[in-house]
Amino acid sequence: MPRLIDLSHPLVDGQLGFPDDPGIQITVHGTIASLGYNLTKISMSSHQGTHLDAPLHFFDDGNSIDQIPLDRFYGPAWLVDLAPGTLLPPRTPITVEMLRPHEARFQPGGKVVYRTGWQQAFNTPAYFTDYPTLTLEAAEWIARRRIGLLGMDTPTPSTEWQACHHILLGPGVEIVLVEALANLDELPEQFTLIGFPLNLQGRDGSPIRAVAVVK
Amino acid sequence: MPRLIDLSHPLVDGQLGFPDDPGIQITVHGTIASLGYNLTKISMSSHQGTHLDAPLHFFDDGNSIDQIPLDRFYGPAWLVDLAPGTLLPPRTPITVEMLRPHEARFQPGGKVVYRTGWQQAFNTPAYFTDYPTLTLEAAEWIARRRIGLLGMDTPTPSTEWQACHHILLGPGVEIVLVEALANLDELPEQFTLIGFPLNLQGRDGSPIRAVAVVK
Repeated sequence: MPRLIDLSHPLVDGQLGFPDDPGIQITVHGTIASLGYNLTKISMSSHQGTHLDAPLHFFDDGNSIDQIPLDRFYGPAWLVDLAPGTLLPPRTPITVEMLRPHEARFQPGGKVVYRTGWQQAFNTPAYFTDYPTLTLEAAEWIARRRIGLLGMDTPTPSTEWQACHHILLGPGVEIVLVEALANLDELPEQFTLIGFPLNLQGRDGSPIRAVAVVK
Repeated sequence: MPRLIDLSHPLVDGQLGFPDDPGIQITVHGTIASLGYNLTKISMSSHQGTHLDAPLHFFDDGNSIDQIPLDRFYGPAWLVDLAPGTLLPPRTPITVEMLRPHEARFQPGGKVVYRTGWQQAFNTPAYFTDYPTLTLEAAEWIARRRIGLLGMDTPTPSTEWQACHHILLGPGVEIVLVEALANLDELPEQFTLIGFPLNLQGRDGSPIRAVAVVK
Protein backbone atom coordinates (compact mmCIF):
# COMPACT_ATOMS: atom_id res chain seq x y z
CA MET A 1 0.00 0.00 0.00
CA PRO A 2 1.41 3.41 -0.90
CA ARG A 3 1.84 6.04 1.80
CA LEU A 4 -0.56 9.01 1.86
CA ILE A 5 0.52 12.46 3.04
CA ASP A 6 -2.12 15.05 3.90
CA LEU A 7 -1.23 18.33 2.16
CA SER A 8 -4.27 20.25 3.46
CA HIS A 9 -4.61 22.61 6.39
CA PRO A 10 -7.48 21.88 8.79
CA LEU A 11 -10.74 23.77 8.19
CA VAL A 12 -11.91 25.27 11.50
CA ASP A 13 -14.78 27.59 12.42
CA GLY A 14 -13.62 31.20 12.49
CA GLN A 15 -10.09 30.61 11.20
CA LEU A 16 -8.46 33.42 9.26
CA GLY A 17 -8.96 33.77 5.52
CA PHE A 18 -8.25 36.39 2.88
CA PRO A 19 -9.40 39.74 4.35
CA ASP A 20 -12.00 40.44 1.62
CA ASP A 21 -13.40 36.88 1.59
CA PRO A 22 -16.49 35.68 3.44
CA GLY A 23 -15.46 34.15 6.77
CA ILE A 24 -15.61 30.45 7.53
CA GLN A 25 -18.37 29.15 9.77
CA ILE A 26 -18.54 25.46 10.66
CA THR A 27 -21.63 25.23 12.83
CA VAL A 28 -23.79 22.56 14.42
CA HIS A 29 -27.08 22.35 12.49
CA GLY A 30 -28.48 19.32 14.29
CA THR A 31 -27.58 16.89 17.05
CA ILE A 32 -28.54 13.37 18.02
CA ALA A 33 -30.87 14.95 20.61
CA SER A 34 -32.51 17.38 18.15
CA LEU A 35 -32.62 15.42 14.85
CA GLY A 36 -31.41 11.93 15.64
CA TYR A 37 -27.98 12.61 14.11
CA ASN A 38 -25.13 15.12 14.15
CA LEU A 39 -25.14 17.44 11.16
CA THR A 40 -23.02 20.43 10.24
CA LYS A 41 -23.57 23.58 8.23
CA ILE A 42 -20.51 24.71 6.30
CA SER A 43 -20.18 28.30 5.09
CA MET A 44 -16.98 29.55 3.51
CA SER A 45 -15.20 31.18 0.60
CA SER A 46 -14.34 29.18 -2.50
CA HIS A 47 -10.73 30.09 -1.59
CA GLN A 48 -10.70 29.08 2.11
CA GLY A 49 -7.67 27.19 3.40
CA THR A 50 -6.01 24.80 0.98
CA HIS A 51 -7.79 25.53 -2.31
CA LEU A 52 -7.42 25.90 -6.05
CA ASP A 53 -7.98 28.69 -8.57
CA ALA A 54 -9.52 28.30 -12.03
CA PRO A 55 -9.01 30.87 -14.83
CA LEU A 56 -12.53 32.22 -14.10
CA HIS A 57 -11.12 33.62 -10.83
CA PHE A 58 -9.50 36.43 -12.86
CA PHE A 59 -11.07 36.12 -16.33
CA ASP A 60 -14.83 36.31 -16.91
CA ASP A 61 -14.40 34.20 -20.05
CA GLY A 62 -11.96 31.77 -18.42
CA ASN A 63 -12.74 28.16 -17.59
CA SER A 64 -14.58 27.43 -14.36
CA ILE A 65 -13.43 24.54 -12.16
CA ASP A 66 -15.97 22.13 -13.63
CA GLN A 67 -14.67 22.85 -17.15
CA ILE A 68 -11.15 21.66 -16.36
CA PRO A 69 -10.42 17.97 -17.13
CA LEU A 70 -10.04 15.81 -14.03
CA ASP A 71 -6.51 14.74 -14.97
CA ARG A 72 -5.34 18.29 -14.32
CA PHE A 73 -5.96 17.62 -10.63
CA TYR A 74 -4.39 14.15 -10.43
CA GLY A 75 -1.05 12.74 -11.48
CA PRO A 76 2.73 12.77 -11.15
CA ALA A 77 4.17 15.90 -9.56
CA TRP A 78 7.58 17.32 -8.70
CA LEU A 79 8.57 19.12 -5.53
CA VAL A 80 10.72 22.24 -5.90
CA ASP A 81 12.08 22.96 -2.42
CA LEU A 82 13.27 26.57 -2.32
CA ALA A 83 14.57 26.30 1.25
CA PRO A 84 15.56 22.70 2.08
CA GLY A 85 15.53 22.09 5.81
CA THR A 86 14.67 25.71 6.57
CA LEU A 87 12.34 28.45 5.30
CA LEU A 88 12.49 31.60 3.22
CA PRO A 89 12.30 34.81 5.28
CA PRO A 90 9.04 36.81 5.08
CA ARG A 91 8.49 38.69 1.80
CA THR A 92 11.40 36.96 0.06
CA PRO A 93 11.13 37.59 -3.70
CA ILE A 94 11.13 34.26 -5.55
CA THR A 95 13.25 34.96 -8.62
CA VAL A 96 14.00 33.24 -11.90
CA GLU A 97 17.48 32.55 -10.52
CA MET A 98 15.97 30.53 -7.68
CA LEU A 99 13.81 28.48 -10.06
CA ARG A 100 16.37 27.89 -12.81
CA PRO A 101 18.27 25.06 -11.00
CA HIS A 102 14.93 23.17 -10.99
CA GLU A 103 14.15 23.89 -14.65
CA ALA A 104 13.95 20.20 -15.65
CA ARG A 105 10.94 19.80 -13.32
CA PHE A 106 8.88 22.39 -15.20
CA GLN A 107 7.63 20.26 -18.11
CA PRO A 108 4.72 21.08 -20.46
CA GLY A 109 1.51 19.81 -18.89
CA GLY A 110 3.34 18.73 -15.74
CA LYS A 111 2.65 19.46 -12.10
CA VAL A 112 5.04 21.37 -9.87
CA VAL A 113 4.68 22.20 -6.16
CA TYR A 114 7.11 24.65 -4.60
CA ARG A 115 7.97 24.87 -0.92
CA THR A 116 8.97 28.07 0.88
CA GLY A 117 8.29 26.97 4.48
CA TRP A 118 5.60 29.65 4.85
CA GLN A 119 3.15 27.09 6.22
CA GLN A 120 4.50 27.98 9.70
CA ALA A 121 2.59 31.31 9.54
CA PHE A 122 -0.81 29.69 8.79
CA ASN A 123 -3.73 31.17 10.73
CA THR A 124 -1.82 34.37 11.63
CA PRO A 125 -2.56 37.72 9.96
CA ALA A 126 1.00 37.78 8.57
CA TYR A 127 0.22 34.64 6.54
CA PHE A 128 -1.79 36.79 4.13
CA THR A 129 0.58 39.77 3.95
CA ASP A 130 4.22 38.73 4.41
CA TYR A 131 4.54 35.53 2.36
CA PRO A 132 7.45 34.83 0.00
CA THR A 133 6.31 36.12 -3.35
CA LEU A 134 6.90 35.21 -6.99
CA THR A 135 8.39 38.05 -9.00
CA LEU A 136 6.49 38.78 -12.19
CA GLU A 137 9.58 37.71 -14.15
CA ALA A 138 9.47 34.34 -12.36
CA ALA A 139 5.75 34.03 -13.08
CA GLU A 140 6.44 34.72 -16.77
CA TRP A 141 9.25 32.14 -16.71
CA ILE A 142 6.84 29.54 -15.28
CA ALA A 143 4.05 30.50 -17.70
CA ARG A 144 6.37 30.03 -20.70
CA ARG A 145 7.04 26.46 -19.59
CA ARG A 146 3.33 25.62 -19.97
CA ILE A 147 3.08 23.45 -16.88
CA GLY A 148 -0.42 22.26 -16.04
CA LEU A 149 -0.51 22.83 -12.28
CA LEU A 150 1.46 24.98 -9.86
CA GLY A 151 1.12 24.35 -6.13
CA MET A 152 2.62 26.33 -3.24
CA ASP A 153 2.60 26.66 0.55
CA THR A 154 1.78 30.39 0.40
CA PRO A 155 -1.84 31.64 0.30
CA THR A 156 -1.39 33.13 -3.18
CA PRO A 157 1.62 33.28 -5.49
CA SER A 158 2.52 36.96 -5.31
CA THR A 159 1.88 40.23 -3.50
CA GLU A 160 1.45 41.62 -7.04
CA TRP A 161 -1.60 39.39 -7.03
CA GLN A 162 -3.51 40.82 -9.96
CA ALA A 163 -0.61 40.90 -12.43
CA CYS A 164 0.66 37.50 -11.30
CA HIS A 165 -2.72 35.77 -11.60
CA HIS A 166 -3.17 37.36 -15.02
CA ILE A 167 0.12 35.79 -16.13
CA LEU A 168 -0.52 32.32 -14.67
CA LEU A 169 -4.26 32.00 -15.41
CA GLY A 170 -4.30 33.90 -18.71
CA PRO A 171 -5.50 32.62 -22.10
CA GLY A 172 -3.30 29.83 -23.45
CA VAL A 173 -1.48 29.44 -20.10
CA GLU A 174 -4.32 28.51 -17.68
CA ILE A 175 -2.23 26.84 -15.01
CA VAL A 176 -4.29 25.32 -12.19
CA LEU A 177 -3.09 27.10 -9.04
CA VAL A 178 -3.15 25.15 -5.78
CA GLU A 179 -2.62 27.49 -2.86
CA ALA A 180 -2.01 27.20 0.89
CA LEU A 181 -0.66 23.65 0.80
CA ALA A 182 0.61 22.07 4.03
CA ASN A 183 3.25 19.53 5.04
CA LEU A 184 5.42 19.99 1.96
CA ASP A 185 8.46 19.23 4.15
CA GLU A 186 7.26 15.61 4.24
CA LEU A 187 7.33 15.20 0.45
CA PRO A 188 9.93 13.35 -1.58
CA GLU A 189 11.06 14.89 -4.88
CA GLN A 190 8.44 12.96 -6.86
CA PHE A 191 4.94 11.97 -5.83
CA THR A 192 1.40 11.61 -7.13
CA LEU A 193 -0.74 14.65 -6.37
CA ILE A 194 -4.48 14.30 -5.75
CA GLY A 195 -6.42 17.56 -5.43
CA PHE A 196 -9.87 17.42 -6.99
CA PRO A 197 -12.18 20.42 -6.53
CA LEU A 198 -15.73 20.02 -5.29
CA ASN A 199 -18.09 19.68 -8.26
CA LEU A 200 -19.23 23.32 -8.02
CA GLN A 201 -20.76 24.36 -11.34
CA GLY A 202 -19.52 27.44 -13.14
CA ARG A 203 -17.42 28.87 -10.34
CA ASP A 204 -13.91 30.23 -9.77
CA GLY A 205 -12.27 27.92 -7.25
CA SER A 206 -12.78 25.34 -4.53
CA PRO A 207 -11.43 24.30 -1.15
CA ILE A 208 -9.76 20.92 -1.64
CA ARG A 209 -8.38 18.02 0.31
CA ALA A 210 -4.93 17.74 -1.28
CA VAL A 211 -3.13 14.45 -0.72
CA ALA A 212 0.20 13.07 -1.94
CA VAL A 213 0.59 9.42 -2.78
CA VAL A 214 4.15 8.26 -2.18
CA LYS A 215 5.50 4.86 -3.17
CA MET B 1 -2.40 7.64 -18.23
CA PRO B 2 -5.29 5.96 -16.42
CA ARG B 3 -8.85 7.03 -17.14
CA LEU B 4 -10.72 9.09 -14.56
CA ILE B 5 -14.48 8.79 -14.04
CA ASP B 6 -16.32 11.47 -12.10
CA LEU B 7 -18.56 9.80 -9.52
CA SER B 8 -19.94 13.08 -8.09
CA HIS B 9 -23.15 14.92 -8.78
CA PRO B 10 -22.81 18.62 -9.60
CA LEU B 11 -23.23 21.08 -6.71
CA VAL B 12 -25.65 23.80 -7.77
CA ASP B 13 -27.22 26.73 -5.91
CA GLY B 14 -30.65 25.78 -4.57
CA GLN B 15 -30.56 22.11 -5.55
CA LEU B 16 -32.51 19.70 -3.40
CA GLY B 17 -31.00 18.15 -0.30
CA PHE B 18 -32.24 16.16 2.67
CA PRO B 19 -35.41 17.90 3.90
CA ASP B 20 -34.04 18.67 7.40
CA ASP B 21 -30.63 19.84 6.16
CA PRO B 22 -29.58 23.44 5.60
CA GLY B 23 -30.07 24.34 1.93
CA ILE B 24 -27.22 24.85 -0.51
CA GLN B 25 -26.34 28.39 -1.56
CA ILE B 26 -23.58 29.00 -4.08
CA THR B 27 -23.50 32.77 -4.37
CA VAL B 28 -21.35 35.45 -5.97
CA HIS B 29 -19.37 37.21 -3.21
CA GLY B 30 -17.22 39.35 -5.50
CA THR B 31 -16.65 40.06 -9.16
CA ILE B 32 -13.81 41.38 -11.30
CA ALA B 33 -15.66 44.73 -11.27
CA SER B 34 -16.16 44.81 -7.48
CA LEU B 35 -13.00 43.17 -6.10
CA GLY B 36 -10.72 42.55 -9.07
CA TYR B 37 -11.59 38.84 -9.14
CA ASN B 38 -14.53 36.45 -9.12
CA LEU B 39 -15.15 34.87 -5.73
CA THR B 40 -17.88 32.57 -4.44
CA LYS B 41 -19.49 31.98 -1.07
CA ILE B 42 -20.43 28.35 -0.47
CA SER B 43 -23.01 27.44 2.16
CA MET B 44 -24.27 23.88 2.53
CA SER B 45 -24.85 20.83 4.67
CA SER B 46 -21.99 18.47 5.46
CA HIS B 47 -24.20 15.88 3.66
CA GLN B 48 -25.00 17.81 0.45
CA GLY B 49 -24.83 15.94 -2.84
CA THR B 50 -22.18 13.23 -3.10
CA HIS B 51 -20.83 13.00 0.45
CA LEU B 52 -19.57 10.70 3.16
CA ASP B 53 -20.65 9.86 6.71
CA ALA B 54 -18.33 9.32 9.69
CA PRO B 55 -19.40 7.40 12.83
CA LEU B 56 -19.88 10.78 14.61
CA HIS B 57 -22.92 11.32 12.36
CA PHE B 58 -24.85 8.87 14.57
CA PHE B 59 -22.60 8.36 17.61
CA ASP B 60 -21.44 11.24 19.82
CA ASP B 61 -18.35 9.25 20.77
CA GLY B 62 -17.73 8.02 17.20
CA ASN B 63 -14.81 9.10 15.04
CA SER B 64 -15.13 12.38 13.17
CA ILE B 65 -13.98 12.57 9.54
CA ASP B 66 -10.56 13.95 10.47
CA GLN B 67 -9.96 10.99 12.80
CA ILE B 68 -10.30 8.41 10.01
CA PRO B 69 -7.03 7.38 8.30
CA LEU B 70 -6.70 8.71 4.74
CA ASP B 71 -6.35 5.21 3.27
CA ARG B 72 -9.98 4.57 4.18
CA PHE B 73 -10.90 7.04 1.41
CA TYR B 74 -8.48 5.82 -1.26
CA GLY B 75 -7.76 2.43 -2.74
CA PRO B 76 -8.98 -0.59 -4.67
CA ALA B 77 -12.75 -0.98 -4.83
CA TRP B 78 -15.31 -3.42 -6.21
CA LEU B 79 -18.55 -2.59 -7.98
CA VAL B 80 -21.63 -4.58 -7.04
CA ASP B 81 -24.18 -3.91 -9.76
CA LEU B 82 -27.62 -4.86 -8.45
CA ALA B 83 -29.36 -4.07 -11.75
CA PRO B 84 -26.95 -4.46 -14.69
CA GLY B 85 -28.11 -2.46 -17.70
CA THR B 86 -31.29 -1.33 -15.93
CA LEU B 87 -32.39 -0.02 -12.53
CA LEU B 88 -34.15 -1.23 -9.43
CA PRO B 89 -37.75 0.00 -9.12
CA PRO B 90 -38.44 2.64 -6.45
CA ARG B 91 -38.38 1.40 -2.85
CA THR B 92 -36.96 -2.00 -3.82
CA PRO B 93 -35.73 -3.77 -0.67
CA ILE B 94 -32.07 -4.76 -1.10
CA THR B 95 -31.87 -8.16 0.53
CA VAL B 96 -29.16 -10.55 1.64
CA GLU B 97 -30.19 -12.77 -1.27
CA MET B 98 -29.31 -9.98 -3.71
CA LEU B 99 -25.90 -9.41 -2.11
CA ARG B 100 -24.87 -13.02 -1.61
CA PRO B 101 -23.82 -13.69 -5.25
CA HIS B 102 -21.28 -10.85 -4.77
CA GLU B 103 -20.03 -12.11 -1.41
CA ALA B 104 -16.41 -12.48 -2.54
CA ARG B 105 -16.28 -8.71 -3.08
CA PHE B 106 -17.03 -7.95 0.57
CA GLN B 107 -13.56 -8.44 2.10
CA PRO B 108 -12.40 -7.21 5.51
CA GLY B 109 -11.12 -3.65 5.17
CA GLY B 110 -12.12 -3.52 1.50
CA LYS B 111 -14.20 -1.02 -0.42
CA VAL B 112 -17.50 -1.88 -2.09
CA VAL B 113 -19.77 0.39 -4.15
CA TYR B 114 -23.24 -0.84 -5.08
CA ARG B 115 -25.32 0.39 -7.98
CA THR B 116 -29.12 0.49 -8.04
CA GLY B 117 -29.61 2.98 -10.91
CA TRP B 118 -31.30 5.44 -8.54
CA GLN B 119 -29.05 8.26 -9.79
CA GLN B 120 -31.74 8.96 -12.40
CA ALA B 121 -33.96 10.50 -9.69
CA PHE B 122 -31.30 12.97 -8.49
CA ASN B 123 -32.61 16.47 -7.77
CA THR B 124 -36.24 15.36 -7.57
CA PRO B 125 -38.13 15.08 -4.25
CA ALA B 126 -38.56 11.34 -4.83
CA TYR B 127 -34.77 10.93 -4.69
CA PHE B 128 -34.95 11.37 -0.91
CA THR B 129 -38.05 9.24 -0.28
CA ASP B 130 -38.39 6.40 -2.79
CA TYR B 131 -34.85 5.03 -3.14
CA PRO B 132 -34.03 1.31 -3.13
CA THR B 133 -33.29 0.51 0.47
CA LEU B 134 -31.06 -1.92 2.34
CA THR B 135 -32.97 -4.24 4.62
CA LEU B 136 -31.63 -4.33 8.17
CA GLU B 137 -30.70 -7.97 7.60
CA ALA B 138 -28.62 -6.94 4.59
CA ALA B 139 -26.98 -4.18 6.62
CA GLU B 140 -26.11 -6.71 9.32
CA TRP B 141 -24.75 -9.07 6.65
CA ILE B 142 -22.50 -6.26 5.34
CA ALA B 143 -21.44 -5.19 8.84
CA ARG B 144 -20.35 -8.73 9.69
CA ARG B 145 -18.01 -8.71 6.71
CA ARG B 146 -16.07 -5.77 8.20
CA ILE B 147 -15.55 -3.93 4.94
CA GLY B 148 -13.94 -0.51 5.29
CA LEU B 149 -16.10 1.56 2.92
CA LEU B 150 -19.56 1.16 1.43
CA GLY B 151 -20.61 3.42 -1.45
CA MET B 152 -24.00 3.70 -3.13
CA ASP B 153 -25.99 5.72 -5.67
CA THR B 154 -28.84 6.34 -3.22
CA PRO B 155 -28.83 9.34 -0.86
CA THR B 156 -28.66 7.13 2.23
CA PRO B 157 -28.61 3.34 2.62
CA SER B 158 -32.07 2.70 4.03
CA THR B 159 -35.47 4.20 4.75
CA GLU B 160 -34.93 2.68 8.21
CA TRP B 161 -32.20 5.28 8.40
CA GLN B 162 -31.56 5.33 12.11
CA ALA B 163 -31.32 1.58 12.64
CA CYS B 164 -29.31 1.08 9.45
CA HIS B 165 -26.77 3.79 10.28
CA HIS B 166 -26.45 2.36 13.79
CA ILE B 167 -25.53 -1.01 12.27
CA LEU B 168 -23.08 0.30 9.68
CA LEU B 169 -21.42 3.08 11.71
CA GLY B 170 -21.53 1.36 15.12
CA PRO B 171 -18.59 0.57 17.41
CA GLY B 172 -16.23 -2.00 15.91
CA VAL B 173 -17.91 -1.76 12.48
CA GLU B 174 -17.41 1.91 11.52
CA ILE B 175 -17.81 1.56 7.78
CA VAL B 176 -17.19 4.80 5.87
CA LEU B 177 -20.45 5.46 4.01
CA VAL B 178 -20.24 7.22 0.65
CA GLU B 179 -23.70 8.33 -0.45
CA ALA B 180 -25.29 9.81 -3.57
CA LEU B 181 -22.63 8.60 -5.98
CA ALA B 182 -23.10 9.24 -9.71
CA ASN B 183 -22.14 7.54 -12.96
CA LEU B 184 -21.76 4.07 -11.49
CA ASP B 185 -22.94 2.66 -14.84
CA GLU B 186 -19.57 3.72 -16.27
CA LEU B 187 -17.55 1.64 -13.81
CA PRO B 188 -15.79 -1.65 -14.49
CA GLU B 189 -15.93 -4.34 -11.81
CA GLN B 190 -12.68 -3.16 -10.23
CA PHE B 191 -11.32 0.36 -9.93
CA THR B 192 -9.45 2.67 -7.58
CA LEU B 193 -11.77 4.88 -5.57
CA ILE B 194 -10.70 8.37 -4.50
CA GLY B 195 -13.06 10.20 -2.16
CA PHE B 196 -11.27 12.28 0.47
CA PRO B 197 -13.38 14.49 2.75
CA LEU B 198 -12.59 18.15 3.24
CA ASN B 199 -10.30 18.58 6.25
CA LEU B 200 -13.19 19.69 8.53
CA GLN B 201 -12.14 19.23 12.13
CA GLY B 202 -14.29 17.22 14.52
CA ARG B 203 -17.34 16.93 12.31
CA ASP B 204 -19.74 14.25 11.05
CA GLY B 205 -19.39 14.19 7.25
CA SER B 206 -18.27 16.07 4.18
CA PRO B 207 -19.29 16.70 0.61
CA ILE B 208 -16.67 15.03 -1.58
CA ARG B 209 -15.48 14.89 -5.14
CA ALA B 210 -15.50 11.15 -5.70
CA VAL B 211 -13.46 9.89 -8.65
CA ALA B 212 -12.69 6.44 -10.01
CA VAL B 213 -9.31 5.65 -11.52
CA VAL B 214 -9.60 2.94 -14.16
CA LYS B 215 -6.66 1.27 -15.84
